[in-house]
Amino acid sequence: MPPAGKFQHSPEKQSANTQPSEAEAAEAILSAASDAEAAGLWTQIKAEAHHDAEEEPALASYLYSTILSHSSLERSISFHLGNKLCSSTLLSTLLYDLFLNTFTSDPSLRNATVADLRAARVRDPACISFSQCLLNYKGFLAIQAHRVSHKLWTQSRKPLALALHSRVSDVFAVDIHPAARIGKGILLDHATGVVIGETAVIGNNVSILHHVTLGGTGKACGDRHPKIGDGCLIGAGATILGNVKIGAGAKVGAGSVVLIDVPPRATAVGNPARLVGGKEKPRIHDEECPGESMDHTSFISEWSDYII
Amino acid sequence: MPPAGKFQHSPEKQSANTQPSEAEAAEAILSAASDAEAAGLWTQIKAEAHHDAEEEPALASYLYSTILSHSSLERSISFHLGNKLCSSTLLSTLLYDLFLNTFTSDPSLRNATVADLRAARVRDPACISFSQCLLNYKGFLAIQAHRVSHKLWTQSRKPLALALHSRVSDVFAVDIHPAARIGKGILLDHATGVVIGETAVIGNNVSILHHVTLGGTGKACGDRHPKIGDGCLIGAGATILGNVKIGAGAKVGAGSVVLIDVPPRATAVGNPARLVGGKEKPRIHDEECPGESMDHTSFISEWSDYII
Amino acid sequence: MPPAGKFQHSPEKQSANTQPSEAEAAEAILSAASDAEAAGLWTQIKAEAHHDAEEEPALASYLYSTILSHSSLERSISFHLGNKLCSSTLLSTLLYDLFLNTFTSDPSLRNATVADLRAARVRDPACISFSQCLLNYKGFLAIQAHRVSHKLWTQSRKPLALALHSRVSDVFAVDIHPAARIGKGILLDHATGVVIGETAVIGNNVSILHHVTLGGTGKACGDRHPKIGDGCLIGAGATILGNVKIGAGAKVGAGSVVLIDVPPRATAVGNPARLVGGKEKPRIHDEECPGESMDHTSFISEWSDYII
Amino acid sequence: MPPAGKFQHSPEKQSANTQPSEAEAAEAILSAASDAEAAGLWTQIKAEAHHDAEEEPALASYLYSTILSHSSLERSISFHLGNKLCSSTLLSTLLYDLFLNTFTSDPSLRNATVADLRAARVRDPACISFSQCLLNYKGFLAIQAHRVSHKLWTQSRKPLALALHSRVSDVFAVDIHPAARIGKGILLDHATGVVIGETAVIGNNVSILHHVTLGGTGKACGDRHPKIGDGCLIGAGATILGNVKIGAGAKVGAGSVVLIDVPPRATAVGNPARLVGGKEKPRIHDEECPGESMDHTSFISEWSDYII
Amino acid sequence: MPPAGKFQHSPEKQSANTQPSEAEAAEAILSAASDAEAAGLWTQIKAEAHHDAEEEPALASYLYSTILSHSSLERSISFHLGNKLCSSTLLSTLLYDLFLNTFTSDPSLRNATVADLRAARVRDPACISFSQCLLNYKGFLAIQAHRVSHKLWTQSRKPLALALHSRVSDVFAVDIHPAARIGKGILLDHATGVVIGETAVIGNNVSILHHVTLGGTGKACGDRHPKIGDGCLIGAGATILGNVKIGAGAKVGAGSVVLIDVPPRATAVGNPARLVGGKEKPRIHDEECPGESMDHTSFISEWSDYII
Amino acid sequence: MPPAGKFQHSPEKQSANTQPSEAEAAEAILSAASDAEAAGLWTQIKAEAHHDAEEEPALASYLYSTILSHSSLERSISFHLGNKLCSSTLLSTLLYDLFLNTFTSDPSLRNATVADLRAARVRDPACISFSQCLLNYKGFLAIQAHRVSHKLWTQSRKPLALALHSRVSDVFAVDIHPAARIGKGILLDHATGVVIGETAVIGNNVSILHHVTLGGTGKACGDRHPKIGDGCLIGAGATILGNVKIGAGAKVGAGSVVLIDVPPRATAVGNPARLVGGKEKPRIHDEECPGESMDHTSFISEWSDYII
Repeated sequence: MPPAGKFQHSPEKQSANTQPSEAEAAEAILSAASDAEAAGLWTQIKAEAHHDAEEEPALASYLYSTILSHSSLERSISFHLGNKLCSSTLLSTLLYDLFLNTFTSDPSLRNATVADLRAARVRDPACISFSQCLLNYKGFLAIQAHRVSHKLWTQSRKPLALALHSRVSDVFAVDIHPAARIGKGILLDHATGVVIGETAVIGNNVSILHHVTLGGTGKACGDRHPKIGDGCLIGAGATILGNVKIGAGAKVGAGSVVLIDVPPRATAVGNPARLVGGKEKPRIHDEECPGESMDHTSFISEWSDYII
Repeated sequence: MPPAGKFQHSPEKQSANTQPSEAEAAEAILSAASDAEAAGLWTQIKAEAHHDAEEEPALASYLYSTILSHSSLERSISFHLGNKLCSSTLLSTLLYDLFLNTFTSDPSLRNATVADLRAARVRDPACISFSQCLLNYKGFLAIQAHRVSHKLWTQSRKPLALALHSRVSDVFAVDIHPAARIGKGILLDHATGVVIGETAVIGNNVSILHHVTLGGTGKACGDRHPKIGDGCLIGAGATILGNVKIGAGAKVGAGSVVLIDVPPRATAVGNPARLVGGKEKPRIHDEECPGESMDHTSFISEWSDYII
Repeated sequence: MPPAGKFQHSPEKQSANTQPSEAEAAEAILSAASDAEAAGLWTQIKAEAHHDAEEEPALASYLYSTILSHSSLERSISFHLGNKLCSSTLLSTLLYDLFLNTFTSDPSLRNATVADLRAARVRDPACISFSQCLLNYKGFLAIQAHRVSHKLWTQSRKPLALALHSRVSDVFAVDIHPAARIGKGILLDHATGVVIGETAVIGNNVSILHHVTLGGTGKACGDRHPKIGDGCLIGAGATILGNVKIGAGAKVGAGSVVLIDVPPRATAVGNPARLVGGKEKPRIHDEECPGESMDHTSFISEWSDYII
Repeated sequence: MPPAGKFQHSPEKQSANTQPSEAEAAEAILSAASDAEAAGLWTQIKAEAHHDAEEEPALASYLYSTILSHSSLERSISFHLGNKLCSSTLLSTLLYDLFLNTFTSDPSLRNATVADLRAARVRDPACISFSQCLLNYKGFLAIQAHRVSHKLWTQSRKPLALALHSRVSDVFAVDIHPAARIGKGILLDHATGVVIGETAVIGNNVSILHHVTLGGTGKACGDRHPKIGDGCLIGAGATILGNVKIGAGAKVGAGSVVLIDVPPRATAVGNPARLVGGKEKPRIHDEECPGESMDHTSFISEWSDYII
Repeated sequence: MPPAGKFQHSPEKQSANTQPSEAEAAEAILSAASDAEAAGLWTQIKAEAHHDAEEEPALASYLYSTILSHSSLERSISFHLGNKLCSSTLLSTLLYDLFLNTFTSDPSLRNATVADLRAARVRDPACISFSQCLLNYKGFLAIQAHRVSHKLWTQSRKPLALALHSRVSDVFAVDIHPAARIGKGILLDHATGVVIGETAVIGNNVSILHHVTLGGTGKACGDRHPKIGDGCLIGAGATILGNVKIGAGAKVGAGSVVLIDVPPRATAVGNPARLVGGKEKPRIHDEECPGESMDHTSFISEWSDYII
Repeated sequence: MPPAGKFQHSPEKQSANTQPSEAEAAEAILSAASDAEAAGLWTQIKAEAHHDAEEEPALASYLYSTILSHSSLERSISFHLGNKLCSSTLLSTLLYDLFLNTFTSDPSLRNATVADLRAARVRDPACISFSQCLLNYKGFLAIQAHRVSHKLWTQSRKPLALALHSRVSDVFAVDIHPAARIGKGILLDHATGVVIGETAVIGNNVSILHHVTLGGTGKACGDRHPKIGDGCLIGAGATILGNVKIGAGAKVGAGSVVLIDVPPRATAVGNPARLVGGKEKPRIHDEECPGESMDHTSFISEWSDYII
């Protein structure tokens, strides 16, 4: 079982800095590093978009409006989300403003965006460029919109957060409650149908396939949704219900229904889910971060081999 | 097994009133009561929206256009659905007119709407106000649109009913055939991916989670979809296929695949689904209306405990 | 196991014509026949739409703009898709042009469209007319858009193909990678949540229900998605992962998780999936094309009968 | 000079009915007659639109959405104006509702509309059908929108009236202050650039060409705009400034600048305007209603003949 | 007075070719020449747009969508007009199709477009590039739309022509009746408020300023609008009424009201208009084509010099 | 004749500050004063809008989106203009960004806006509130958009400035060349049809009625448009052509055609225009700023009295 602390990654956490000068210096270095990383990635994205615009005039207008006319990654994403999520009663200019102000006011959001872009690029073999992810991946876009609605939620702007959440659910068919706390380096692959409940917590470097549910347990309030540790891999259509802990580095097979804790680096499969290796002595795999290796099938295949 | 009569809740049913004076009097009283209830709820919704508009100026325009500028719940929903479901070839004014005329012509639709709003507010701990449900819950909105398309279907306006159905499926990813008969006090929680077939019937006070399928049995016409009794709870991703009866008060676990009748107040789980307690002597739970208690997980947890 | 050749149905395949004159003559005859079939179907669709427009004035504008004002099936579909898939950054005129040019340049697309329309009309008892399918079936529309994005992909216009793919995933919640090769006479019933990966191949006359995943195996590139033989039937919510072969005429039950080859005309059900009749001696059914008979449930029912 | 009473044609005038029974009877007869006239005209418009839709499939969608799908002239105009005048911040559904409610609540508006349609059809040789006027004549549409904004103005709903006024000025380039009182049977031919000020009054059966100004006199409040008598004809680009009276049946030549009263049936031309026949003894023409005969040029031609 | 033949420039005129071979050869040569001219101009426009897109990223999306993504001038204009003139009831795809088909079917339209672009570029000192005229000049765009509506009119597609005319009048505040016959090399400078009636005829190489009216004479049908000879210059706000002839090379001063023929190369000014030099012996200027020299003011200045 | 310097009010003028400390101090005081004035006006506008929103629920959504949800006058105007001027190829988010950045980067624009609002409120008796002017006055909005396009022009961003200019001309029918230099405290009353050329210059506190042309003189480049001194009043439909000077405090009557300089505080009327009092000894009125008193008619009336 992962220590509870593993789940306390949310950006709203404030640590008491006893030695401000050192801590500040460290933060400044980190901040400069992440600025440099974001700048480098943005340069790369613009280069990709520029190349595509030259090769494909029919797409050039789209690439200029979404990427090439903007001066920063934050502006590009704010524009793109504003135009994707707007409706006749929630105008694009209002959403653009909201996204841009939120991204600008909290650099940690931008850093998470950068980590998410890298996650998609590295883990998904169908992802051939960063710009493709930025423009086309609804899982990526849904998470960025979630980070903004989560920020609003923590600022007690709940009705606005919920209105945004509703637009994301309509437009992307991805339903993440604004209160859910989500780490960085997340890949929501394909993403359609993902449902993540109010008190769910997701660590860093997690990969979640489409149709996955991190659901609750009835109508009582309180902490009632799953906690997903760092580096987990949750297969397509898996349903995890209740305040259960999926330990760091665990795998949950496609279509599994999980209602009980899964130990770190263990594997749960089936409906109802069983631990590979058995309940008493589950097999612990070597992979520290299956969310990054994205091996969806070998474990299930092996386990179910004797069945078919 | 529930009596067949349990499923005959559809609004098109017409009973022969042999004593009109008494029946009419009773109906008048009921009608006045439901008018008062609807009026009270509408007052509450406006108060919530007014409060939110004051707190959050960025959302005030949205709240005025969708709720605060309207004189009745029917007008508000008609406006909201008209603007959500319109497209470049089906204009919002046309849809608004259609919704408003249908809601106005049949008060039973409005009463069902009121019951659905109460269902979401009471059963879903994430639902913090009626206005939030009215504006943001795509399951709620999809059902209201369905009630209108169902009304059109019963009036033999099939192409229009199907066009509306198609828009709901595009916009909300909720696919309810216009002919399906659905009771009141329904909660479609999260709602993405719900599919309900042509001859399906759903009783009152039922809760259905996302990705649930009430599907058919092949290409033969005729009565080929499930019948869900009053008060049932159908877990996320459950697939119920064919003209099977899910008895009143029964529970179906998340991810279950059900092809055979489930007795009243019994519980079916797993793929393929099994009855908790066994086929011969299934355990009958005490809850009369699990669709209201929304206990999704305790029964599954218990049942699968020995597995993980 | 089906011969590998069964999957080589893609339109980009080029056979060496040793006797051009004969082959050309045959092709000319086929082409004329398919032109006649398409023309006949288009006449039928217009007649249906004309009838509906007369009966339902509220829908007449919609029917004229989408069907009755157009001179051919290709123009009608291009218009309808252009208006459904457009966004504020990808204008309808651009998409209309793209669809129309692609359909016009390759008649095999039109022929596949005709076969798909017939498939929906014959197999889905809820499909009451061709025009209903053309206008309302998001599975049908998503496949037609896919054929165009696949064509672009084979022409190395990948960014444009992926942008189109992204719009289809947003609008229809159907996610088919542009590189996937798909036969004709396909029914994607209900369609919400279908995910089909980059190297997947689907034969002719296949029926696939909603929430079906033809997914990959981790982050390695290469051939990593399922191959579905001619005439298969894949039930709702089935998850098929990896480069496995589902033999011609096989059935996969609703909610099944399949990671290993399924022999032709065999049936796999459950999570993890098992072959009906057992691994060693699977039962081989008589139906050559269950994708056409659409019998979703009898086999599961039978198999799970002893369970509930 | 016309009696002041000639200008008191505004619908808000309330006469004291001393003999209600007789007056009511008369009004009922008139009302029935105007209903019949409106119904007849509406039948004619639908017949025209039906004919055009059959002849021109490219326009059929437009004709069905604007005319053929509606059950009354009021609904058709409300739909058409709602869709023409809407903006991203004033939605079509809101405007449609506003127009429909206003037209329905005051039958005199509908009667004025009927008279305006007849005026265009009879007086403008380029007007080949009633439906053409209803759909295409921005002068006609601007006046109908004005009647609604005037109604709102008289109900002290000034900000809404002014917002509507602003939309009409943007969309049609016709600027009629909501307080201006305008009779019926009005033709605003071509209409671009017409400006009519707050205290202007226009009688019945008046024709006004494009670029005409009925303007004020400086920044003092009060009655400061022209009064145009019944049956007047005001030529293109004429500028009439101040609280001057243009007598019934008078003509004002194109491009004239008029700052002083014009006697009934007299003719004023030129910049500065002169009376034909001279100031002392102006020629009085025989035409009682030049607004209907629309003779724009003979009088100017004659008068200026000696000049060129 | 110009010979009547001067006004017979309309494209629908068909001359009897007695010697087809020679005439055809000549036409082929001319056609090739005009194709080459159009191709050269299109190359130039793309170069301008490409330069601007590089310099101004904020405008690049606009320039790619309107110009740089298109393969021909006809496609670019059809796209631009389709998107400018569309409304919620006349979709951009329909208009795009209509424009493209009309431009493609009749090369004389394209040639006139080329001449109009050159006219704006040469005559208007504020016109700094061809692309600026193509994108921004509403006079230019209104005339191109008119050419298409005129073509429709000559094909007896009157309701469609009038619907297009109405959109041009709404969007550009330029009102040219579809039946009006207009030559090539036309500059409508500023263009707001121009009104050109049904039987008006305009020669080649004419320049017309804003607010100009070529109006009719009352409600009688028949030939009742002005005929403007080749090379004329009509100043801002001039009003020309009735079936009068403005001779080739004539000038009409700003604000003039003209109701009588103006001889070739003469100058008319004032309200009512007078001929410079006097009625009996009007001054005949040397300029053959004042429509090209665009000298708006020298002649008026001179004439009115003695007045102020 | 006003000194040339009177026209050098353009914001791009840079004076050499020899004593920076004093000048800077003065500027800081002025800046603080103008900030306070703008803040006070903004408070007033919000109070007006709040009152109207309470009184008129149908308009509340509009008032919140355009005014009440914004934190500053600049944001409100940027939002309003972005949504009014956007098109399918120039998105509202792009325009909003452009307006907001420009207004924020140059406080003099904001100060001019404040002066223009005051001008409309004081001079136009039909203007009943500041918010009405901000929302509804197309002359006011056109000038604000012009200030932004003029700023872009001075930064050599000509294609963007011209694209904006084109949108203003389409949407408001107000055509002001981006290079024209315009002072502050300007009222464009009614505004439809106003045309202001490239080298025109307009002083402070000028009032210009609709249909006014400040036009050029042919096709030669260079300084060719009118210069309007401080405090002038230009009546409806006046046409002023060429590089003429209208002296400070002069009046030009409605419909006048002016081609020669008008002395300060003189009055010109008629077509062709004459000076009231005669050419040799024009009457010089007492009003220093007729642009503020807005007396449009008394002078014309007096002058033309003897005519009619």
